[in-house]
Amino acid sequence: MLPNLTPDVHLAARLFDELRARTHDGVGVTREAFGPGERIAHEIVRREGEAIGLEARTDHIGNLYLTLPGSDRSAPAIIIGSHLDSVPRGGNYDGAAGVLAGLAAAAGMRRAGFTPSRDVTVMAIRAEEAGAWFPTSYPGSRGALGRLRPEELDIRRQDSGLSLAHHMAEEGFDPEAARAGKAALGPRNVAAFLELHIEQGPVLDGEGIPVGIVTGIPGSRRLRQGRVLGRYDHSGGTPRRHRHDAAIALAEFAHRLDEAWARLDAMGREMVATFCVMATAKEAGFTKIAGEAGFQLDVRSVDLRDVDLLFAEVHRLAGEISARRGVTFDLGPESGSAPAPMDAAIQAGLRRAAEALGIAHRVMPSGGGHDAAAFAAAGIPTGMIFVRNQNGSHNPDEDMRMEDFEKACAVVTAWAAGAAG
Amino acid sequence: MLPNLTPDVHLAARLFDELRARTHDGVGVTREAFGPGERIAHEIVRREGEAIGLEARTDHIGNLYLTLPGSDRSAPAIIIGSHLDSVPRGGNYDGAAGVLAGLAAAAGMRRAGFTPSRDVTVMAIRAEEAGAWFPTSYPGSRGALGRLRPEELDIRRQDSGLSLAHHMAEEGFDPEAARAGKAALGPRNVAAFLELHIEQGPVLDGEGIPVGIVTGIPGSRRLRQGRVLGRYDHSGGTPRRHRHDAAIALAEFAHRLDEAWARLDAMGREMVATFCVMATAKEAGFTKIAGEAGFQLDVRSVDLRDVDLLFAEVHRLAGEISARRGVTFDLGPESGSAPAPMDAAIQAGLRRAAEALGIAHRVMPSGGGHDAAAFAAAGIPTGMIFVRNQNGSHNPDEDMRMEDFEKACAVVTAWAAGAAG
Repeated sequence: MLPNLTPDVHLAARLFDELRARTHDGVGVTREAFGPGERIAHEIVRREGEAIGLEARTDHIGNLYLTLPGSDRSAPAIIIGSHLDSVPRGGNYDGAAGVLAGLAAAAGMRRAGFTPSRDVTVMAIRAEEAGAWFPTSYPGSRGALGRLRPEELDIRRQDSGLSLAHHMAEEGFDPEAARAGKAALGPRNVAAFLELHIEQGPVLDGEGIPVGIVTGIPGSRRLRQGRVLGRYDHSGGTPRRHRHDAAIALAEFAHRLDEAWARLDAMGREMVATFCVMATAKEAGFTKIAGEAGFQLDVRSVDLRDVDLLFAEVHRLAGEISARRGVTFDLGPESGSAPAPMDAAIQAGLRRAAEALGIAHRVMPSGGGHDAAAFAAAGIPTGMIFVRNQNGSHNPDEDMRMEDFEKACAVVTAWAAGAAG
Repeated sequence: MLPNLTPDVHLAARLFDELRARTHDGVGVTREAFGPGERIAHEIVRREGEAIGLEARTDHIGNLYLTLPGSDRSAPAIIIGSHLDSVPRGGNYDGAAGVLAGLAAAAGMRRAGFTPSRDVTVMAIRAEEAGAWFPTSYPGSRGALGRLRPEELDIRRQDSGLSLAHHMAEEGFDPEAARAGKAALGPRNVAAFLELHIEQGPVLDGEGIPVGIVTGIPGSRRLRQGRVLGRYDHSGGTPRRHRHDAAIALAEFAHRLDEAWARLDAMGREMVATFCVMATAKEAGFTKIAGEAGFQLDVRSVDLRDVDLLFAEVHRLAGEISARRGVTFDLGPESGSAPAPMDAAIQAGLRRAAEALGIAHRVMPSGGGHDAAAFAAAGIPTGMIFVRNQNGSHNPDEDMRMEDFEKACAVVTAWAAGAAG
């Protein structure tokens, strides 16, 4: 029989306010990975963790751990966490909500005099929004797990032109240990990792449900540098049969790929396909037929077989349209990631906790990628819980109701108390 | 019986070389309207016109006239000309060919001792490539004809931010006379205007014919500031049914409009429709659904009823796609121009001249717009002759064979001698 544990949501609410005030950029919040905004956020969270009596430490990557000691210090820990960085002009909740949920849970346990059987650690991860700053995925969590490739430390930040290693060292951390594959975490010392995050999508809000229990994080196949090459010609003087129009070839490609996705969607496949960027080259202009156009394509699903089906269509359409319209498709390098299924026992535990607390919830895949994917890939039992949010994410209007956050924190706290009871 | 007149094509060839050398920008040629490159070109042409004994004068707009005096100085003149400016990094022949053809014809007449019955004037027009510098059409020829609207003089050059009037005055001309509607030319003093121009399109080159006789200059309907407004959302977390994707809405719009054009094209309608620019907004980026995309659409035909048919489809598709995809189409202001048919008697005269000289030719509509359209709109009998060219136009690779130019000049000279015989 566990004590009746209530997360300290007032603490979280106060810290959300302080985070917003101190990292506001005039439009949204900016907490640059390995930069000033992220540093401020780590300072706030460390100060509060120490104030409620948690043990604070930092690893070679700069990830922060705030630990409520368990009765068996040698047992693998329960980690609750997420990231503290943000995209430029982002929202206050994306990432920070998962760290403050862990802090609220630990504070609630502390206040109730609850001593867990094993360490319960709140983790503030570095640089999850790496894509906005450095073109790589999850360097903070993968660095903690000893899973960064050495060359990833040499990736340059897109605005400063300086390397990830440079920025890490500047903040006082140890990129060379990361390069050598040092691991702070692994299956030997982590029993489970749980990440709370705003949903980022509109599903929970549309259905009026405050909490989501995540089945898995989708895998992806991505073209970030796709190009269509045609020929610049005079828009007035070039009859249809003489054209090599890159713009209209790209429009046909995108529209017909979207129709292919619509067919798969109608069959109930849970996947997404997005032309994030689609643009004629800078040489384009009025009275010219476009000789070049570029695109970025992002296809994701928890089931990579669906992604592969659509990618077969990418290649088929590129070939067919090239031949008919006299243009060339250069798909560029392909990147991607494997899907990360969430641990079945943790999913079941979260559902039981929500049911016991009478909190409405639904089971759902994640849309976006999260640090949880790195933990799952490292063989650590991993779970995720979503909080309903409004106005999307990665924008200043991103919103989350504190009553929804409170419900999700209650599930997190009950699950953690059970897992470390 | 006319003397056997041969145009002085060696003179033209020498001046093409000098023009290229003195206005080369490292990539192509740049002869900015009312700027240094155009000024250099006018200096070269004036110097050579005076050297062969033509009377030189400049109007309030800065257009240059080089006149071979006729026996009746009071009779309306024959004008042969085109423009001397170019697009940035353009080709050497677009515009200049028509001026040097006039000069070659006048030099040939002079050399043969031929005195025309009426003045034969070579005209070097200002700022035909205005669209590349100032967003207006034919300010040089329309200014000479007293047909500029006062407010057009306040249009600002896109790079300098200064007005057309400012740039005209800086080059020593009189924008206030233009604003007051002063006309240097009109039906009272111009019997006919003839413009030689490179084709700009691939039709003559594809068919192996050196010379085209133009039936008319197409009219147009244009959207330069079209936008599709949707909503930025996370590309991973937003299921298909929740999307308001501006990029894919624009792709569908462009592709289906192109299909509508293909159907009209298959029915033999001579029209063109081009998405010159198509681009997601600068806020677009990886892992975002595009919330905004812009486009520029240019539709032209010698028969405006065809253009209207396609524009009805523009409005129908915008409405249908908006409703289905939850986006908004903002088509922005529409601009355009009326078609300008070429004078039937001049067309017939050019055909007779080509036949008499044994020069292969075809009758064809113009693709692009030209100063000739301004003359036709002012009620002056107007003709155009095209020279086969390679590699399109408005680019540094634009090319024209001197033997084709020579054939077209022979037609121009024979026609002018007949018209002023």
